[in-house]
Amino acid sequence: MQYFLEHLATCVSAISGVLAARGKSVDLFGVVVLALVTSLGGGTVRDTILDLRPVFWVADSIYVVTATLCAMVTFFVARYWTGLTPLADWALQLADAASLALFTLVGTEKAMGAGVPPLVGMAMGVITGTAGGMIRDTLLGEIPMVFRRQIYLYATASLAGAGVFVALNGLVDSNLLRFLVLLTVFGLRLAAIWWKIHLPAFEPSVNIHQG
Amino acid sequence: MQYFLEHLATCVSAISGVLAARGKSVDLFGVVVLALVTSLGGGTVRDTILDLRPVFWVADSIYVVTATLCAMVTFFVARYWTGLTPLADWALQLADAASLALFTLVGTEKAMGAGVPPLVGMAMGVITGTAGGMIRDTLLGEIPMVFRRQIYLYATASLAGAGVFVALNGLVDSNLLRFLVLLTVFGLRLAAIWWKIHLPAFEPSVNIHQG
Amino acid sequence: MQYFLEHLATCVSAISGVLAARGKSVDLFGVVVLALVTSLGGGTVRDTILDLRPVFWVADSIYVVTATLCAMVTFFVARYWTGLTPLADWALQLADAASLALFTLVGTEKAMGAGVPPLVGMAMGVITGTAGGMIRDTLLGEIPMVFRRQIYLYATASLAGAGVFVALNGLVDSNLLRFLVLLTVFGLRLAAIWWKIHLPAFEPSVNIHQG
Repeated sequence: MQYFLEHLATCVSAISGVLAARGKSVDLFGVVVLALVTSLGGGTVRDTILDLRPVFWVADSIYVVTATLCAMVTFFVARYWTGLTPLADWALQLADAASLALFTLVGTEKAMGAGVPPLVGMAMGVITGTAGGMIRDTLLGEIPMVFRRQIYLYATASLAGAGVFVALNGLVDSNLLRFLVLLTVFGLRLAAIWWKIHLPAFEPSVNIHQG
Repeated sequence: MQYFLEHLATCVSAISGVLAARGKSVDLFGVVVLALVTSLGGGTVRDTILDLRPVFWVADSIYVVTATLCAMVTFFVARYWTGLTPLADWALQLADAASLALFTLVGTEKAMGAGVPPLVGMAMGVITGTAGGMIRDTLLGEIPMVFRRQIYLYATASLAGAGVFVALNGLVDSNLLRFLVLLTVFGLRLAAIWWKIHLPAFEPSVNIHQG
Repeated sequence: MQYFLEHLATCVSAISGVLAARGKSVDLFGVVVLALVTSLGGGTVRDTILDLRPVFWVADSIYVVTATLCAMVTFFVARYWTGLTPLADWALQLADAASLALFTLVGTEKAMGAGVPPLVGMAMGVITGTAGGMIRDTLLGEIPMVFRRQIYLYATASLAGAGVFVALNGLVDSNLLRFLVLLTVFGLRLAAIWWKIHLPAFEPSVNIHQG
């Protein structure tokens, strides 16, 4: 089950890497690199900083295969089938929230298992969940999505989930704990999209003008 | 004393991370991430390349706390108190030069203590002093401040200080050495701001037009 | 011979780092940093992810010297001698293709020697060949050259060469293998420039308008 979920998250984040390149003059190879960076980047930063060796995709290169295949299929579908429906957009939002939840859980659990302080464990959960997308956006010359107030609690949902893990770790059954973390991230993210909840941002005048 | 100075440098560079996000549509979480990247980024790159484990803020997560608190206070002050005076700007320049000096000293000393060649020690001093700001500016979609000729010897002051450490290491008392390094970076940076000293840049025509 | 070729590749990629900064307001120090990042970045990422210690330029700082000297000479030549001829541009293209080929070979060979799976070995060849330029372009606020369809099989040539290494490794003489890898990357890159071969890109409408 966890194996299936991890590969689902890898695939979904690879898809998001491909879709971020729409409208840019990026070729097929660039698209695959962006997909790999998005889906493997967060875990690579985590394993490198914590010195967990070998880095997860060096130990098991099946992750590289999964991300590459999902990226190539998405590239050809998105290029030649331009009528992507709003239904597909909504499905992608759901799947993306699921991959954020899962990467956060995996990252926090792996870091706490390595015996780091709680605050570092939470940081690693957020890094695993968001750093891949951050590198993707930076390579495309944009301010990373996770920084922007229009995105509605993306990294904040990840931080909340990591906080739940750290707070309840060892106090409740580990499968219940995992479920609670996933529910926190996934639920908070979807609720924030639905009710357009966001954190305060700089530039209060912008808030006034926009409503 | 060194403990106090290190936390001062961490706090001041976190503040610079927050202030760099002014005028961008970045939310509170994004601001905290930018602050953490600015104040912990240089040392993280240094420890990762030199394989000094655990990375300093993984070993002692108090640095994460210091940077986060300084960033949040700055965010709310800068957002709601728009009348930041020129006096505050000048104080920030002073404090920023102090944090550049201190990070350069810490980075060079830690690298040389790990037994690397002098040239690598100098590179690590400059990386510790400047890489955090470089990542911050890149994430915000700007050419890093340290590259720009308008900035007046930012990284160059860091390099000079690292050079002083490497040249005099073992020849003079270690506290005198530390003082000389800090004085070199801090003095050179302030002198360059005061007299508008900069290195030659590409585009000589730009120089002609500007004076 | 390999020592000579490695330093040639280091020097040529440092030159490309300097030339990428033309037209930007970057000072001499920024230019040297860009040159160092371009020529040492790929190998640094490879050694860090594979945990090959010490990182190559920490172990032998002569690479830092080579890159710095080549960058400074190029900076002053390019700044004061504006009549760079088309001949020089063509020579640079040749030299750049040679450095891509060599870095790909070194990266793949070093990774396979560390016992990683073939797919990871290929990824490391491409990373060594292209990551330095990717970081350079990102720091300059541009979409990395290797992603753009206008560039004609840059990273793809590197991937093909790494594939040749992995496919024939152990089957043929190691010097013949090295020659075949270099020939694949170098030949494919030059052929792609000559016949303007590129991979499919997003935005089919752009293709229609341009040809």
